[in-house]
Amino acid sequence: MLGSTHGTLSTDPRAARAVACSERCGPAVRHSTDFDVGGRPLHSPVPDLDRFFRPESVAVIGASDSEGRPNTGITRQLLAWSERVGARLFPVNPGRESVFAIPCRPRVADLPHPVDLAVVLVSDPLPVIEELAESKTKFAVVFASGFAETGADGAAAQERLTDAVSRSGLRLLGPNTNLNAFEKFRDDLDGPAIALITQSGHQGRPVFTLQELGIRLSHWAPTGNEADLETADFVNYFAEQPEVGAIAAYVEGLRDGRSFTLAADRAARKKVPIVAVKVGRTETGARTAASHTGKLTGSDAVADAAFRQFGVIRVDGLDELQDTAALLARARPPQADGVVVYSISGGTGAHFADLAATAGLRLPELPQSTQDELHQWIPPYLNVVNPVDNGGHPVGDWRGRKIIDAILADPSVGVLVCPITGPFPPMSDKLAQDLADAAEETDKLVCVVWGSPVGTEDAYRTTLLGSSRIATFRTFRNCITAVKAYLDHHRFVTSYRSPFDDAPRTPSPSARKARALTRPAGRLSEHAAKQMLRAYGIRVPREQLVNSAAGAVRAAGLVGYPVAMKASGPQLAHKTELGLVKLNLTSASQVRDAYRELTDIARYEDIDLDGVLVCQMVEQGMEMFVGVTHDPVFGPTVTLGLGGVLVEVLRDTAVRVPPFGEGEVRCMLGELRGRALLDGVRGAPPADTDALVDVVLRVQRMAMELGDDLTELDVNPLMVLPRGQGAVALDALAVCR
Amino acid sequence: MLGSTHGTLSTDPRAARAVACSERCGPAVRHSTDFDVGGRPLHSPVPDLDRFFRPESVAVIGASDSEGRPNTGITRQLLAWSERVGARLFPVNPGRESVFAIPCRPRVADLPHPVDLAVVLVSDPLPVIEELAESKTKFAVVFASGFAETGADGAAAQERLTDAVSRSGLRLLGPNTNLNAFEKFRDDLDGPAIALITQSGHQGRPVFTLQELGIRLSHWAPTGNEADLETADFVNYFAEQPEVGAIAAYVEGLRDGRSFTLAADRAARKKVPIVAVKVGRTETGARTAASHTGKLTGSDAVADAAFRQFGVIRVDGLDELQDTAALLARARPPQADGVVVYSISGGTGAHFADLAATAGLRLPELPQSTQDELHQWIPPYLNVVNPVDNGGHPVGDWRGRKIIDAILADPSVGVLVCPITGPFPPMSDKLAQDLADAAEETDKLVCVVWGSPVGTEDAYRTTLLGSSRIATFRTFRNCITAVKAYLDHHRFVTSYRSPFDDAPRTPSPSARKARALTRPAGRLSEHAAKQMLRAYGIRVPREQLVNSAAGAVRAAGLVGYPVAMKASGPQLAHKTELGLVKLNLTSASQVRDAYRELTDIARYEDIDLDGVLVCQMVEQGMEMFVGVTHDPVFGPTVTLGLGGVLVEVLRDTAVRVPPFGEGEVRCMLGELRGRALLDGVRGAPPADTDALVDVVLRVQRMAMELGDDLTELDVNPLMVLPRGQGAVALDALAVCR
Repeated sequence: MLGSTHGTLSTDPRAARAVACSERCGPAVRHSTDFDVGGRPLHSPVPDLDRFFRPESVAVIGASDSEGRPNTGITRQLLAWSERVGARLFPVNPGRESVFAIPCRPRVADLPHPVDLAVVLVSDPLPVIEELAESKTKFAVVFASGFAETGADGAAAQERLTDAVSRSGLRLLGPNTNLNAFEKFRDDLDGPAIALITQSGHQGRPVFTLQELGIRLSHWAPTGNEADLETADFVNYFAEQPEVGAIAAYVEGLRDGRSFTLAADRAARKKVPIVAVKVGRTETGARTAASHTGKLTGSDAVADAAFRQFGVIRVDGLDELQDTAALLARARPPQADGVVVYSISGGTGAHFADLAATAGLRLPELPQSTQDELHQWIPPYLNVVNPVDNGGHPVGDWRGRKIIDAILADPSVGVLVCPITGPFPPMSDKLAQDLADAAEETDKLVCVVWGSPVGTEDAYRTTLLGSSRIATFRTFRNCITAVKAYLDHHRFVTSYRSPFDDAPRTPSPSARKARALTRPAGRLSEHAAKQMLRAYGIRVPREQLVNSAAGAVRAAGLVGYPVAMKASGPQLAHKTELGLVKLNLTSASQVRDAYRELTDIARYEDIDLDGVLVCQMVEQGMEMFVGVTHDPVFGPTVTLGLGGVLVEVLRDTAVRVPPFGEGEVRCMLGELRGRALLDGVRGAPPADTDALVDVVLRVQRMAMELGDDLTELDVNPLMVLPRGQGAVALDALAVCR
Repeated sequence: MLGSTHGTLSTDPRAARAVACSERCGPAVRHSTDFDVGGRPLHSPVPDLDRFFRPESVAVIGASDSEGRPNTGITRQLLAWSERVGARLFPVNPGRESVFAIPCRPRVADLPHPVDLAVVLVSDPLPVIEELAESKTKFAVVFASGFAETGADGAAAQERLTDAVSRSGLRLLGPNTNLNAFEKFRDDLDGPAIALITQSGHQGRPVFTLQELGIRLSHWAPTGNEADLETADFVNYFAEQPEVGAIAAYVEGLRDGRSFTLAADRAARKKVPIVAVKVGRTETGARTAASHTGKLTGSDAVADAAFRQFGVIRVDGLDELQDTAALLARARPPQADGVVVYSISGGTGAHFADLAATAGLRLPELPQSTQDELHQWIPPYLNVVNPVDNGGHPVGDWRGRKIIDAILADPSVGVLVCPITGPFPPMSDKLAQDLADAAEETDKLVCVVWGSPVGTEDAYRTTLLGSSRIATFRTFRNCITAVKAYLDHHRFVTSYRSPFDDAPRTPSPSARKARALTRPAGRLSEHAAKQMLRAYGIRVPREQLVNSAAGAVRAAGLVGYPVAMKASGPQLAHKTELGLVKLNLTSASQVRDAYRELTDIARYEDIDLDGVLVCQMVEQGMEMFVGVTHDPVFGPTVTLGLGGVLVEVLRDTAVRVPPFGEGEVRCMLGELRGRALLDGVRGAPPADTDALVDVVLRVQRMAMELGDDLTELDVNPLMVLPRGQGAVALDALAVCR
């Protein structure tokens, strides 16, 4: 079994596919042997989807023009779309001479040449897909449902589709997908667009409908069950398209965590934001989503962490998806991160500022010079520090625009937000117009919240939505969410450094030593688990495994008094509860007694021991937890948390998906509610956080190198000593495959 | 100073006002001596505001009809409003013969008889208010700003207004308020209405505008600076009006916590929901709000707790305020708390269910019989467990209505939610109509989320908003927030028991003993603080305060070995850090040494001791924290939390405003993240939570009885022993006034 992870290089169909694709995808692709030490890809190719979205020839398999048949409506829509994109359409149907006056071919084999895109409307698509693969068709779309979303039989049928395409150059969208890619997009809108990826057509509709509010959309990829083309493929492609300002995604489940993080990594390098709803905050949601498009259900916390690591902006509502994606697609990079709130009502300003500050936006005090300028036009008793309250009247005349310009001219201001809570046309119409005019002349972000619940007002529909330079919202919350995402995104991409560049490609000398300890599979003894840690350079207490009282006394002498003694055995957990741990033994006689007592308890409890550990006592540190688990979607993950009893009760932990660097580990520390305990409280010395960070990175390396062979690792407690003194793994549990 | 709290009975102007008001307010009022043991009222009278909202005579002081003057527009609006409510309007202005052809009186004194309502438009209102008070006017509204919202001078001016009305029968709205109470309300809408209270006119506008979407509004009280009439007065009044289904409030600050909780208590007894936005989540927001209407700024956590104790539903956005208040005003009480999600898309159902479950809604599995019924109309491969996915097609014909009726007929269903993410008229128009029709024939709540970002669609504007029986939302989030509030509200009022009924009215014997210990004021010694706890029946360790080494040894003999020793002095904090605590002393010689060491350190550190405490050692418990602090708005509050180091680092605490009962203390326990530690982890015995609850109630009693004299109390740690063994206050800090 040694080296089994490396076996994936030749047998994993995904790796084979990556190679196949890289051959097709041309010069942009790195060498196909670009895999990390665990055999997982470090590069995700960009599929050439130009011919999918803009084909020259489209075959419709199962085309129809008989009134009342569902395929007729679909054929009609595909015909209209083909005309719009300038493609020639070929109906295929053995039962017809022609469809909509276009001559019909009986079979795929009768097509005059390989087509760019075949849309498969038949209910049993596998034979057709095999024919298409044979005929060198570039892309196929399969509408039929009844695959992985229906259970085991369907999953097997889907696997056959996947196999059929993985052996060929054909790329497949679906099954269980629809016409969304072939909708009519508005072509009269300018500027950067949203590209949309959804795993449910209905759920993508609101983002698509944004076009009616003047927001440009460039693409819609409804990925369905993702038997072949998956969300990650479209992310990779969209990130490379110049017209795409942001990618909006509705995700029910990810096919493969690594391909998704690689695609997100590409988008981060390209500075293209991804905004995503991901279902699965709860068991209920995850289960229902899985039954909808047949995706794997991993841990939501892991997906959430992976999103943050790679800068994917997660939102919960489709309304937030719309508003955030629209802002991020269109706004220019910020010149400063200060947000100024400007309002015709002190109450509105206070309320917005309160929610904005709660969300973590920075609302700087405007400098005195700007305040003085504003007070030329705003009465002296009104607050212009930030929020700026104009009291209403100045918006009615020439002062309105002056105020806006003065705020935008201040270098500390990156974003101006004007919440207009209640439309009062004599004021709000003029205010909206001033904001729209000012937005045309600045690179800074101007946001307006139109708070009326009605939304048919002219100032909203015409002035605000008519401006491509104003970001208009309907609620404070969505404005704040979007502005926060905008500033966070630019901060993220500015300092982004891909962890894939630094991922280890070759095994460390530790790996061989550690792997030897993983046999036989199952739960290792504490002693073996600690040997594994030691192989990776993680400090463990001086300890010896002994099998006699006399041996224990000898070991204690070598280890140095006082000592701790613990029963050690492969299937042994909950040692403390069973009385199988003795602390602070200070003499040979205590050691001898302890040996006897521990072995007696083990006999009495019928526990199989491989011996008794005699260990150095380590006190006076901060107890932490570092662990490895496997996520079905993202693979090995590393968790850091408060140790001891607290890890169980408070679940104060942070998780990450490898590969990640030192900075990410420091972010993990920052996520812990009990973070301050590491800094030392009540006179306790600060803990050696550098040593803690080092242990987490070593555990990550172990997780990557041992891969699936290390099913679970818990280092608990990891005793983090005072600064400069390191960290010691006092106990460890490892389960191997 | 003894008994100073009781002094408030005669000197507190608020109490005097309560008496004055109770005389006016007639038979509904309890006896005016209804005060708790701390001298705070246990009853809040219902002001008779009928003549404010429906006056027979209205005087406008400063009335004008000269074009271009602001008062002209106001006078015109008041004239129109007076006509609508059937009141006679009397312009008052020394500079005019007539205003809008109505004869004008020069002064208040020239009015023919006392008027019900005087609207004061002059910039210096004090002399007018004095005249009005003299003339037996019932209500006055003051528009002028420049009072407490501007700083100390303005606050003093406002105090003079308060004084002027508190000596009379006149009730005052304002200053710094506006015309909102006199707006034109739609009178063509039926059913229960929203009554609105706002401390900013602009911020109330969106709720008022709900009328354009068919939601009925009955009143709008813009309370401004609340020099006299405050939010609580309007809550009390609205809770008694039969047409009011819910009270919506926008709150920047509360004038007095007790009057607010009493009003909320009345609303809870009357089962009238209050939905409120309260600014002040952050320092920024609280400060800005204070500068807007001049309110006190208390702790947001305390206000939040008080809201929850008395069932006030707090929301953050004005959109949530609208949607939640509209639902709560109109929906009938639920017959069950199960929520069923019904959708034409499996993705939509999964997404909604995920967010709903995250928010804590209960989504029961539909019973097999209902599922079988649904599968008559829904294809067998679609999920009808809950969410119910109809796959789209059945909504197009007669099956659509059957499905809805079958779900509503299920007894486990209290709420049916149908999220329509993307309008597709052939389906969504019919679906909306079926839902509207079904809603007419059921008492159960039917909610629809119209997910289109456009909102001008007919099915939305006409079918859904046109139905008073459907609750229509624009976002999943707001629907979930409102449904949660609806179910929570009915659960709350069904089991509500007013804590004011059980509040202590007379001092306990403990109070006299404890009060003696509060002298001299300032920080008490640990020993004195513990004596105070002991007076309230809270267990403290056996301990003696000694002043010699020999005394220490004698005390240790009496207390029983092992003992702890601690320096004790009035100004002494951080004893552990200074080395002023010695634990686990087992012999006379150790006690003697410890005495010497402690007194040496104190001398060296120049600390004034009142002696050394020799205490019983108590180990093997769970360290908790119980404390008292004073909030400027709500008065004394009681906090419970994890003790020891954790209270500082994790801030895992829950706070409550007295009076509260035992059930509320158990809720506090439930709010602690570390709650499970009390149940015993890793084999530790469960802690005596009954004893902990008892200590919290005793501390509450102390806080109420000592009132302002007990500025601060920290019992930390309170060692909670294993179940049945009680709880012991190991250390205590008390600061007295």
